[in-house]
Amino acid sequence: MTDGGSRRIAIVLFPGVEELDAIGPWEVLAYWTRNFPEDGWSVGCVSRDGAAVECAKGLTVLPHHSRETMPPAEVVLHPGGRGTRPLMKDADHLDWVRELSAKASLTTSVCTGALVLAEAGLLRGRAVTTHRTSLDLLAELEPTAEVRRDSRFVDDGDLITSAGISAGIDMALHLVARLHSVERARQVRHGIQYDPEPPV
Amino acid sequence: MTDGGSRRIAIVLFPGVEELDAIGPWEVLAYWTRNFPEDGWSVGCVSRDGAAVECAKGLTVLPHHSRETMPPAEVVLHPGGRGTRPLMKDADHLDWVRELSAKASLTTSVCTGALVLAEAGLLRGRAVTTHRTSLDLLAELEPTAEVRRDSRFVDDGDLITSAGISAGIDMALHLVARLHSVERARQVRHGIQYDPEPPV
Repeated sequence: MTDGGSRRIAIVLFPGVEELDAIGPWEVLAYWTRNFPEDGWSVGCVSRDGAAVECAKGLTVLPHHSRETMPPAEVVLHPGGRGTRPLMKDADHLDWVRELSAKASLTTSVCTGALVLAEAGLLRGRAVTTHRTSLDLLAELEPTAEVRRDSRFVDDGDLITSAGISAGIDMALHLVARLHSVERARQVRHGIQYDPEPPV
Repeated sequence: MTDGGSRRIAIVLFPGVEELDAIGPWEVLAYWTRNFPEDGWSVGCVSRDGAAVECAKGLTVLPHHSRETMPPAEVVLHPGGRGTRPLMKDADHLDWVRELSAKASLTTSVCTGALVLAEAGLLRGRAVTTHRTSLDLLAELEPTAEVRRDSRFVDDGDLITSAGISAGIDMALHLVARLHSVERARQVRHGIQYDPEPPV
């Protein structure tokens, strides 16, 4: 991970991950943990083999760790993107996600990351959301889940799922508030000037 | 660049670039150009030497091109981050930025990228903005500029500057509207579900 914080957040990277799904939350969480090391948290990116990952839109990023070298994570974040489609049928990936989730106290997803959590059996009976174009598929994959169609993110205790792509930024600010304090989350929001004014 | 579009947007990467400064606009612009290739635009990331870049918060990304291999860009985007500080005194970088800007029809910045544009002499007499904590410094570096303190971004014709970090997302949506159409920018906004609801 990226600093000496003893409590760790792991962002899962994979080929075809949507860039902002991962890096929106990364910015929020890394801004927090880097600027407030006294809070005792750190964040890092991990992929199964630790190799460079080509994201969905063609940007290549390097994870900090492989599955073997990553330190234990209390919080796991699974982004989405078209790369989730093969992962949904990838038994090895689903095993790893179940293992990460079992060892974590909080499992989170952005966008279609929720589809992978569903296929891993982690969304049974839970309140969840995903990218608006995948809401029906999510309900189909996990009929016992309560799929919330109008939520930016859904906090269901030890599970938080968020809507599409940029919604991960909102969820990550909520994470800072939950893991530390509302005041800290406001400081981070202020620091990254997240006072959005979509011009269209 | 990342596809066959004939009109190109270049995002400048450098050590210590703030992750979301670059990758927020990347997501917007790559989502646009990848999903609507018929619009004829493409976007790519470039660094001086083309080598992997460690960003401000510790994520490493790979540029698509070096200064030598990049195709000509009509639009240049210069992000900010703590890595701008050495660049402001780096004559070679400032020469390159002046050259990119001279060949482009539109020069843009996110966050403290504006400080580099100021040092390159590109903001004389222009209406501009930057990260809120650097507004005074920007006014000092370029006393002839009209520094707008409350704007999410400032469109001054062939120059667009934006406020801190996440403001680059708003500016990039404005770019899509300007380079193509408001309708297209709305489609991209809808696709990345940029209906922000900051929770704190």
